[in-house]
Amino acid sequence: MSTSLPLRKDLSGCQPYGAPELEVTARLNVNENPYPPSDAVTESIAEAVRAAAAGANRYPEREFPALRAALADYLAVESGVRLDPEQIWAANGSNEVMLHLMQAFGGPRRAVVTANPTYSMYPEYARDTFTDYVTVDRNPDFTLDINALLSAASESAASLVLVASPNNPTGTAASLQDIRALCAGLRGKGPNGSDGLVVVDEAYGEFRRGGVASALTLLETHDNLVVTRTMSKAFGMAGLRLGYLAASRAIIDALRIVRLPYHLSAITQAAALAALSHRDELMAQIAHLRELRDDLATWLTEQGYTVIDSDANFLLFGPHPDRHAVWAGLLGRGVLIREVGPEDYLRVSIGTDTEMDLFKTSLLEVTRGTH
Amino acid sequence: MSTSLPLRKDLSGCQPYGAPELEVTARLNVNENPYPPSDAVTESIAEAVRAAAAGANRYPEREFPALRAALADYLAVESGVRLDPEQIWAANGSNEVMLHLMQAFGGPRRAVVTANPTYSMYPEYARDTFTDYVTVDRNPDFTLDINALLSAASESAASLVLVASPNNPTGTAASLQDIRALCAGLRGKGPNGSDGLVVVDEAYGEFRRGGVASALTLLETHDNLVVTRTMSKAFGMAGLRLGYLAASRAIIDALRIVRLPYHLSAITQAAALAALSHRDELMAQIAHLRELRDDLATWLTEQGYTVIDSDANFLLFGPHPDRHAVWAGLLGRGVLIREVGPEDYLRVSIGTDTEMDLFKTSLLEVTRGTH
Repeated sequence: MSTSLPLRKDLSGCQPYGAPELEVTARLNVNENPYPPSDAVTESIAEAVRAAAAGANRYPEREFPALRAALADYLAVESGVRLDPEQIWAANGSNEVMLHLMQAFGGPRRAVVTANPTYSMYPEYARDTFTDYVTVDRNPDFTLDINALLSAASESAASLVLVASPNNPTGTAASLQDIRALCAGLRGKGPNGSDGLVVVDEAYGEFRRGGVASALTLLETHDNLVVTRTMSKAFGMAGLRLGYLAASRAIIDALRIVRLPYHLSAITQAAALAALSHRDELMAQIAHLRELRDDLATWLTEQGYTVIDSDANFLLFGPHPDRHAVWAGLLGRGVLIREVGPEDYLRVSIGTDTEMDLFKTSLLEVTRGTH
Repeated sequence: MSTSLPLRKDLSGCQPYGAPELEVTARLNVNENPYPPSDAVTESIAEAVRAAAAGANRYPEREFPALRAALADYLAVESGVRLDPEQIWAANGSNEVMLHLMQAFGGPRRAVVTANPTYSMYPEYARDTFTDYVTVDRNPDFTLDINALLSAASESAASLVLVASPNNPTGTAASLQDIRALCAGLRGKGPNGSDGLVVVDEAYGEFRRGGVASALTLLETHDNLVVTRTMSKAFGMAGLRLGYLAASRAIIDALRIVRLPYHLSAITQAAALAALSHRDELMAQIAHLRELRDDLATWLTEQGYTVIDSDANFLLFGPHPDRHAVWAGLLGRGVLIREVGPEDYLRVSIGTDTEMDLFKTSLLEVTRGTH
């Protein structure tokens, strides 16, 4: 890059974020849903977009009330929590939802606290908004160390404590007790004595095991809680880029200030609404993916691996004496997984039955039963 | 809003940006293209989105090479300037393109300089990225005061000088001579002796009058120049939210660092590509809108108004002893225009022939020939 560009110093030498985009037989590296939308879903989206495109010379609705209502309806079915559409906010991927949160509540001389290991985009949201990024370690079993989080948040007067639940890359869900403790512990501990916000990233929320509750159930009683979701994972719509969150109206009002006007296109609004109208079909896949996950966890354990308990659509397994060799060996067999998390672990997304069979066969070949 | 939220202090009391979204007969307030896409365009978009939706369980291409190539082809036809696709960047509206520029090159203790009156979103891009927002006044005829811009940029060691050309809300195009002078004058004047960047916002570039050249023609010889465009205006795709820019590869590489990964959905990429395949049809409308603009300028002048020379799809006209009364009177007749710019002027977008007739009739009624 030209040395004469006025690039921010802290960006010098940085690389664009992103996993490899390779042509492989089994793409198990970015936790996508392996099932393409059905013809019925595709047809609905095409027809909805046709109607939206007919008026595309006009700007889209800035407040997208129909989509917010549909997302609220979906959450009511999925989690049993009935929210007002005005408690819902959406953007181009949960990436942008997170950016809005940090733009409104973060910034210079403000901090966000997270618990490592966790999603590798979090430091980039902080960097992009000039927010201090403070981390604490999770417990050895990857559950949250609440005391460490609260201490770090208090010391930095953090605006936000951001926890992924289920966590990426470990799959670990946070207990409601932990979320409650965070919400209570951050009262008055934010900048200028404000209440720090707890942001629970439930990107993988729909994959949680039976008996694991969503943090959505705490919204009614905790007004410093934000729960983010996405249509990318369980809903099988990574290509649509539709992330959203649920929170108090006051929090939503703050996000409305920093959002770029018309940030959600008419096409995106129409396509998301169409996809949501097929929620029963799309949600039905989730049960099978959960089964495949649990089956694979059992199999990996039988092979002698440690497998972290997962409430998500991926598994973190190890230890590998040389994880890069395993990763590369799998890639040579058309199976792309992810080198992420603790340095001797690998993460594999749950794919189709066929993809899981290929993964297992390939893993045995690569490790030659030496694990 | 709850006083206990950790909202950024500088956002306290701010309102979300946006013009009124009202149901009216003639929506002439946000410079939209009045012509809906044809059935052929709509059909192409629907079919392209159908294909994209069939793979929407996967993340979209992060670098959208096909769309960048199509945008480069379009610019070659529109402006006669052939660029490499790698010199093109795109995002969800030119809003987001501008945000990427300010995220990469702005930030705390950095400045962007603009020339007032100009587009009212500019200060929000600066605010959202914690970039100092420095303004100078345009000349009385709304052309750029180059000396004032260069002085302000030098004093603030500005990373960016941002000029809209044609300017919103005045319609004034900057001369190539002025753009050249800015590019030359900012050499070595940016932070730490870097070259300040000149960002020419050509959102309305396609509406420029004959003989007015695009700043795109300067890209080959000026590597501190950025030219932004949008599909929202001339191309009639405001609902699609597709903004883009052309610049050196080094500048694009900097933007790739701060963009959120997968910021452009597969649906958006497909729909934009489909719309661009109809560029001949869509560009044909522009000639007629230009004629309507020039006709309306003549008519307003005949009514005794001062009309600012416009290279855009809107006109700024006045003075109005009470512009709000005129605005409200027009709204009462179903004609929505914009109160923006110099305090005794109003801005009207160019609509269809019918809408222009309604505007003229209504304006005469509202002013009762008293202008």
